[in-house]
Amino acid sequence: MQDFNTIINNIHNNLKDNVVKGVVASYIPELSKQDVNQFGIFIQHMNGENFSVGDAEVPFSIQSISKVLSLSKAIAFENNDIWKRVDVEPSGNPFNHLSLLELENGIPRNPLINAGAIVIADILCSQFKNPKQEFLQYVRAIANDQSIDYNLKVAASEKETGFNNLAAANLLKSFGNLNNDVDVVMDFYFHQCALEMTCSQVAKAFYVFANKGRCVNNKQHISSSQAKRINAIMLTCGFYDESGEFAFEVGLPGKSGVGGGIVALLPNQYVITTWAPGLNAKGNSLIGMQALEQFTTQTNLSIF
Amino acid sequence: MQDFNTIINNIHNNLKDNVVKGVVASYIPELSKQDVNQFGIFIQHMNGENFSVGDAEVPFSIQSISKVLSLSKAIAFENNDIWKRVDVEPSGNPFNHLSLLELENGIPRNPLINAGAIVIADILCSQFKNPKQEFLQYVRAIANDQSIDYNLKVAASEKETGFNNLAAANLLKSFGNLNNDVDVVMDFYFHQCALEMTCSQVAKAFYVFANKGRCVNNKQHISSSQAKRINAIMLTCGFYDESGEFAFEVGLPGKSGVGGGIVALLPNQYVITTWAPGLNAKGNSLIGMQALEQFTTQTNLSIF
Amino acid sequence: MQDFNTIINNIHNNLKDNVVKGVVASYIPELSKQDVNQFGIFIQHMNGENFSVGDAEVPFSIQSISKVLSLSKAIAFENNDIWKRVDVEPSGNPFNHLSLLELENGIPRNPLINAGAIVIADILCSQFKNPKQEFLQYVRAIANDQSIDYNLKVAASEKETGFNNLAAANLLKSFGNLNNDVDVVMDFYFHQCALEMTCSQVAKAFYVFANKGRCVNNKQHISSSQAKRINAIMLTCGFYDESGEFAFEVGLPGKSGVGGGIVALLPNQYVITTWAPGLNAKGNSLIGMQALEQFTTQTNLSIF
Amino acid sequence: MQDFNTIINNIHNNLKDNVVKGVVASYIPELSKQDVNQFGIFIQHMNGENFSVGDAEVPFSIQSISKVLSLSKAIAFENNDIWKRVDVEPSGNPFNHLSLLELENGIPRNPLINAGAIVIADILCSQFKNPKQEFLQYVRAIANDQSIDYNLKVAASEKETGFNNLAAANLLKSFGNLNNDVDVVMDFYFHQCALEMTCSQVAKAFYVFANKGRCVNNKQHISSSQAKRINAIMLTCGFYDESGEFAFEVGLPGKSGVGGGIVALLPNQYVITTWAPGLNAKGNSLIGMQALEQFTTQTNLSIF
Repeated sequence: MQDFNTIINNIHNNLKDNVVKGVVASYIPELSKQDVNQFGIFIQHMNGENFSVGDAEVPFSIQSISKVLSLSKAIAFENNDIWKRVDVEPSGNPFNHLSLLELENGIPRNPLINAGAIVIADILCSQFKNPKQEFLQYVRAIANDQSIDYNLKVAASEKETGFNNLAAANLLKSFGNLNNDVDVVMDFYFHQCALEMTCSQVAKAFYVFANKGRCVNNKQHISSSQAKRINAIMLTCGFYDESGEFAFEVGLPGKSGVGGGIVALLPNQYVITTWAPGLNAKGNSLIGMQALEQFTTQTNLSIF
Repeated sequence: MQDFNTIINNIHNNLKDNVVKGVVASYIPELSKQDVNQFGIFIQHMNGENFSVGDAEVPFSIQSISKVLSLSKAIAFENNDIWKRVDVEPSGNPFNHLSLLELENGIPRNPLINAGAIVIADILCSQFKNPKQEFLQYVRAIANDQSIDYNLKVAASEKETGFNNLAAANLLKSFGNLNNDVDVVMDFYFHQCALEMTCSQVAKAFYVFANKGRCVNNKQHISSSQAKRINAIMLTCGFYDESGEFAFEVGLPGKSGVGGGIVALLPNQYVITTWAPGLNAKGNSLIGMQALEQFTTQTNLSIF
Repeated sequence: MQDFNTIINNIHNNLKDNVVKGVVASYIPELSKQDVNQFGIFIQHMNGENFSVGDAEVPFSIQSISKVLSLSKAIAFENNDIWKRVDVEPSGNPFNHLSLLELENGIPRNPLINAGAIVIADILCSQFKNPKQEFLQYVRAIANDQSIDYNLKVAASEKETGFNNLAAANLLKSFGNLNNDVDVVMDFYFHQCALEMTCSQVAKAFYVFANKGRCVNNKQHISSSQAKRINAIMLTCGFYDESGEFAFEVGLPGKSGVGGGIVALLPNQYVITTWAPGLNAKGNSLIGMQALEQFTTQTNLSIF
Repeated sequence: MQDFNTIINNIHNNLKDNVVKGVVASYIPELSKQDVNQFGIFIQHMNGENFSVGDAEVPFSIQSISKVLSLSKAIAFENNDIWKRVDVEPSGNPFNHLSLLELENGIPRNPLINAGAIVIADILCSQFKNPKQEFLQYVRAIANDQSIDYNLKVAASEKETGFNNLAAANLLKSFGNLNNDVDVVMDFYFHQCALEMTCSQVAKAFYVFANKGRCVNNKQHISSSQAKRINAIMLTCGFYDESGEFAFEVGLPGKSGVGGGIVALLPNQYVITTWAPGLNAKGNSLIGMQALEQFTTQTNLSIF
């Protein structure tokens, strides 16, 4: 296990001075203020050990990484009923995501694309009495950390510019696949995406998926079978139009966010989170993708 | 000209007892209350004569017919500048209109599909101080009739169920092709579509396009060249996914609405309006289409 | 009528030294040899007069213009039965024509796009005993000119590079919308497109559509009603993705070909052919489009 | 390991009398002759043991399962160069596969959809002197079985009806992504798909992917890294439009064919092949999918 420390320190050293670091997300004004040079890695091993390098304790906007957390809570609530409203197939095209939704009569391709995550948000808005508060409590519980919170500036920033997501929500509503008011669901959704967490907090939260549904406190939040299914969805759908590439290069279930975070895991072994705000052309952290590819190549610890 | 009277009376007689009358639009709750047996025809000839049969003086919801009126006012305001924001090509697919908008980066195919008409509504919201009031005045002026008004119940009904249009507006906004707030534009748009007019009022309003831009009062509202262009757009884009069929069967520039109205015209000769609320599978008045096909076949008065 | 002479001479003078002339079609190797400076105009009036300027008697490859001729013969053979196998709606997107064909289960959007014209070619292959010979006789008959012939080099050149058309034909076959062998139909199709005609020959052949189905020899080849329908199809579908633009700018039914020819007509009045091999980005003759736009603007002789 | 025997016998017993067995593929006439009641399972374990039940030694048409074998040989020949001509992303829509190919300029989504496999076939046609013979030798070598052969009737049957594949090949050719003649590539492709193998032969051939590139004879055919990548591609793209579902329900890399075969594997542990000719609506073996789902649920041996 000492290896992990050496390996991630070497990877961090190799990549931190990369000239090409990608571009910080600009479509959400608040996110564009991030420093492209920040870079952290954190590993939470199932044996209790953890490993950390760089900016692993700096909070960042987890954005789409939150979709896995909301999905897990929706599955805990409704189990298989959610698959009547959202499919589990990879989405294929990135450039016409509303097109697919339209062609397929308002059934999103999977719960990790925006339209699918909005349906999941709608489910949580129906199941929770105080959705924003109770979802935050759930995240704090699985991560075992009461300090996690929403960044309200980011949530407000997304609300002001999230027209594409509003288009998706209205389209879902027009197909009868949104039970709550568009405004209610989107207020929840924009907050969910604006969760701020550190690499270590994200790794601890995702421990539940690597550990058959039990969190770091050993409490069962979802069943072992539900955890497996969420891992399968992360593998096939976790990286937008680069999901196949990630499976191919890294070989782990995982999820990225436009805040520059990536979390990936090997069931029963470890969770790894990277954070580097510069994105590649597909919207995934450029340095993070490289770090994970180097990690599974050097450790030979992938699912394939 | 006596022929016209005989011809439209015969057509009215032949069709009014048709067993198959199509289905009244139901997606706007207020429209679903219409009586499928209503049927009127009105012809306004350039020589001043007019001809009428059936329910030609009963007000109906003109819906998409209003898109030609708003387009004409936008052209009067901005002339060719509007073609930077909306194209003039037929739209092809009906079933995935948002797909096209997405693939073509937020430039609607033409001003007579919903997305295009929403861009036109945005232009009017920028040009008018009191858009709803001033647009109503324009329509009253070209139709020479101060009694024309919005049906506020229909406008409210559309607002409550117009999620697909809200999706289009938000998508336009996400592409930077909507300058005003979505809510402002859509409030105007839902009112515009909720204009209530009779067959004779519609025919008089559209006289301006058959008469080189001069209305029934002989006032020039748009240039002769602008009138020609609007006619060209009606011919290629006026009937959703049935535009080719209408050109083929009827051979006149025209526009239909889901309220069951159709207006068509032969430049320099006449304007004809039909109204029968039952729609065919493509959303055009079933009886109205047949009436117009029979009219141009019997009179041999088409553009081809 | 002297006006016509003056007008087309002026237009020819204005445009013939244009610096920007478009690009000669290169995807068919034989066509790329054309001289971009060639430019002819020919008008055949219904009153028997004709007007000519520039290279109006130089033969060129009529390419897609031939689709209107084959359509007219197929309609003469099968009348309305052909509309079970091909639609009459504009095609919308140019960049994914096979996509549309696939989405719409092998029913081409209209007979003037490639897939539709291949279905029409299949009909002629079923109706004719010697398709290539008999179709040539038909064209010679309506144009009243026995010298018209295929350019065999161009036909061979298209055969060697026509993979996209072969893809369309195989896709039609897979949907059961091609009765003859792919090779047989495509051999006919490539010859049809390789017809070589002058501006004056094209104008004479299309006289039949302006003259209610009667050719220059006054023989009835198609019915008056069929001629009207073909004109309607030309107006809505004759210029690929620029059909709306042509209706808007020129206001006449017409058809273009990648050889640089354009033919357009005002029913009961005249047929005009232009030829200038340089194409615009949409595949239509750049100078030809301008010439026709200037012609209808100056004469005020359009259908709108 | 005795468990495996009991487990697959129980699964076989449970499923073999299922009333609903799916529909035998009919689009290739030869395949439609298969008996829907045939059902075999074979497991090849890395420890050398194997387990068998039902029709595990009856040869069937492996069809698309062959795409993984041809891909592995192409990777062995050209390594990463092949990724310039074919992508590794899931394909999303099944119903418009040519559409995607067209939109993405002739670069197939992945090597396991038809268009991608045709590009791979083109690579083999360039690399092999006698493609059909040498590919057969490769398959015999990795399966360690000289009796494997093409079913020439099936190959001929596919050739006569494979218009959709011919459309794809011609489209690839039109985009410059096919170096050999369409006929040459498709003759190879139709033979490749017509390979006839038993469950045990398929399991032995796929041993190479579960065993880091070494076949049952311990010979290294591809590198360990190449084997991992092929597994990643199988997981994300192996089951047409049901790849996400398979990852979700079964949780193994695998590949299906319309002959009713499915092969799946857990790296470093085992390969399992099922064969039951009845297909579900997505074109995968109905009984085979259920058998594999039950197998990984009962053994808890999946990658997630």
